[in-house]
Amino acid sequence: MTRTLSLGAFIMATGHHVSAWRHPDVPANGGLDFPLYKRLAQVAEAAKFDAVFVADSVAAPTAEIASRMARSDHFEPLTLLSALAAVTERIGLVGTVTTSYNEPYHVARKFASLDHLSGGRAGWNLVTSDAAAEALNFNRQEHFGHAERYARAREFHQVVTGLWDSWEDDAFTRDKASGQYYDPAKLHVLNHEGEHFRVQGPLNVARPPQGRPVIVQAGSSETGRELAAQTAEVVFTAQTSLAAARDFYNDLKGRLPRFGRSADDLRIMPGVFVVIGQSQAEAQEKFEAFQELVEPQVGVALLSRMLGNFDLSAYPLDGPLPELPLTDSGQRSRQLLLTELAGRENLTLAQLGRRIAGGRGHYSLIGTPTQIADELQAWFEGGAADGFNVLVPHLPGGLEDVANHVVPELQRRGLFRRDYSGSTLRDHLGLKRPANRYTI
Amino acid sequence: MTRTLSLGAFIMATGHHVSAWRHPDVPANGGLDFPLYKRLAQVAEAAKFDAVFVADSVAAPTAEIASRMARSDHFEPLTLLSALAAVTERIGLVGTVTTSYNEPYHVARKFASLDHLSGGRAGWNLVTSDAAAEALNFNRQEHFGHAERYARAREFHQVVTGLWDSWEDDAFTRDKASGQYYDPAKLHVLNHEGEHFRVQGPLNVARPPQGRPVIVQAGSSETGRELAAQTAEVVFTAQTSLAAARDFYNDLKGRLPRFGRSADDLRIMPGVFVVIGQSQAEAQEKFEAFQELVEPQVGVALLSRMLGNFDLSAYPLDGPLPELPLTDSGQRSRQLLLTELAGRENLTLAQLGRRIAGGRGHYSLIGTPTQIADELQAWFEGGAADGFNVLVPHLPGGLEDVANHVVPELQRRGLFRRDYSGSTLRDHLGLKRPANRYTI
Repeated sequence: MTRTLSLGAFIMATGHHVSAWRHPDVPANGGLDFPLYKRLAQVAEAAKFDAVFVADSVAAPTAEIASRMARSDHFEPLTLLSALAAVTERIGLVGTVTTSYNEPYHVARKFASLDHLSGGRAGWNLVTSDAAAEALNFNRQEHFGHAERYARAREFHQVVTGLWDSWEDDAFTRDKASGQYYDPAKLHVLNHEGEHFRVQGPLNVARPPQGRPVIVQAGSSETGRELAAQTAEVVFTAQTSLAAARDFYNDLKGRLPRFGRSADDLRIMPGVFVVIGQSQAEAQEKFEAFQELVEPQVGVALLSRMLGNFDLSAYPLDGPLPELPLTDSGQRSRQLLLTELAGRENLTLAQLGRRIAGGRGHYSLIGTPTQIADELQAWFEGGAADGFNVLVPHLPGGLEDVANHVVPELQRRGLFRRDYSGSTLRDHLGLKRPANRYTI
Repeated sequence: MTRTLSLGAFIMATGHHVSAWRHPDVPANGGLDFPLYKRLAQVAEAAKFDAVFVADSVAAPTAEIASRMARSDHFEPLTLLSALAAVTERIGLVGTVTTSYNEPYHVARKFASLDHLSGGRAGWNLVTSDAAAEALNFNRQEHFGHAERYARAREFHQVVTGLWDSWEDDAFTRDKASGQYYDPAKLHVLNHEGEHFRVQGPLNVARPPQGRPVIVQAGSSETGRELAAQTAEVVFTAQTSLAAARDFYNDLKGRLPRFGRSADDLRIMPGVFVVIGQSQAEAQEKFEAFQELVEPQVGVALLSRMLGNFDLSAYPLDGPLPELPLTDSGQRSRQLLLTELAGRENLTLAQLGRRIAGGRGHYSLIGTPTQIADELQAWFEGGAADGFNVLVPHLPGGLEDVANHVVPELQRRGLFRRDYSGSTLRDHLGLKRPANRYTI
């Protein structure tokens, strides 16, 4: 079988460009418009994407500048994806849920429920919280530190996967004649007692159709890579060149054997920001239409967020990026990228903010469908990616452009499926269904 | 306008009868069968029910006898109701979520998200956990005591409703020309600091379409009634006679003025267990078909659960109900009901278990559609109920019976709507939309 690439569609509110909501083609209330999300998921499914992908945070910004960004009103991922499960058939449904301010029993249960609702299409983007404001919504006065967040995340993952294995796949016999609903020998009580969590179990949901929903991660720090090598099945990453992406790819895949895993157990899917035109010039023009809508303070606020909420409001817009303390923000790798970029091109704060307004540090492809397919192919065949998470400036138009123009080009080249061959997200990604820990 | 009654449909797994799953007409895997739930919600909607209602707990039983009951594998309510929101148009969606082992920010957010997904059809059945086993799934070694659970519940409600008011109804201006996405003057940060919770806010979801999702409660204890009088908009209650139901009704409505509320602010909906036949004898026969499937130990296990998980396994099946300590179980009112019933009729443990196998302490109506409508009318017109939460022995058949036979009879009598006149759950229930606390 020829190796084919995976595609995820990032669907969030008005699109990935920070000022997309102001564009005349974009429904400004997209964040809470279910018919729009339904259309997005159906467009992605018709194009045979592996999954749609929803980002998240558990706080809303309150600084004045936030009132000029479309960030404060959107659906909660698990409720949204459950609703989408009911109006789609095959596409995977990946939602972000933090391990920092949550209980593993709730998270295990909701993803197991989503996996059953969707017939095996759930994926969990397991993150640690990067915004200190989240702590304040959850009975804490201080954000957990970087190391503690990762230690919690690792243990959280242990508990959740343990709970998913509470029941063997054939535990529920439901034998009407004998009256046996389940076989007690196939029920396993977790009894987890760890440093951060104490969870007895069992889960009150049968084992998910996928055995376990797919684990997705996005961390790029050293700690993040180690966690991913140990636990992730898909990694979503920001890479700015084929060479850097290949290094990342090799580094991460190289870590797998230490955890008893092989290269096939993990799909690496860099984010790509895509703007499509019939000519390079038209694509560039489309992109500029979004760029013109960026207020300098909004670009800088976005930058601040990407730097781990480092407050930049006191610095002059036409001055340079200030020297940043290497904070414990969990955004260290992105900090380095941006500092390097600003230095290399001698950008002011306003220029840097505008530069990232669309791709937000992801690789940007602005061109014709052929040019874009060429690049994706080069990365895929060049050992830098198993697939891509596609970010578009605006929704729904940007996704429709990809579905109508880039996907067919990838299909013609034999790089992407023309139809689904399986029914679960694991099937689409080529990931094997994990055995229950109690049966191996 | 004539006063009409409200109807809720209790939809859970295989039905309300503990042995329904063994009946040949019942899909034994109902608890995780989404197409079945979709059908149930659509049947209830076609019959113009106010809402479907989903119970919950956050633990699975592990005693051997649990393997003979259909209790361990079902959807989580918020994911299930979100999926149902996408395949229904008008019916309310009420889900149970405990305040004992949850964070108010998550609960506020998920119900707000469901309310937006469904166009204003969300209801939250606010409960305190009655099973000590739940504590063990959430980092605790001991269950919270009764008083503490209620104190937490009250504060939890304050936080959740406060978070729902984070944004004024017209806060999101989304003005493309000026670049103002929301009006900062219409954002309110909660800054809650209480005895049990410390939550800053704001919520990252716009104010729900209903202002606030409808608050449902089921507590019948003194503390439970006080909480309901202060905070509930619908009360679901187990009453065993018209006289007792009327006392409860008058007591609860009488408490409202002390909290600045009027009788119209709260709908009281007793549970009624309904089995329908073309004749009384046929209905009784249908019921007996379920009763015959009850193993004595299963009936006793159900009884044990209804007594607040008091362990009855050591007592002889043909002996009497042992004297129960008045535990801190939150099931005190039900305990009294059952003790009284067992004493009055001199029932053995096995007999008592079988007796409650269907209605579980709710008023049972086994008869023709006319007989059932007569009783509901008598309660409704006799000042004992504003509506009913309908429990049926088995699903989907039992609900279809009610929709096809009892609802039309109520409609003929002018007691129930022939079509929805509004679009939100509040509209159906005749409850007003609460103003934002910051604008009054």
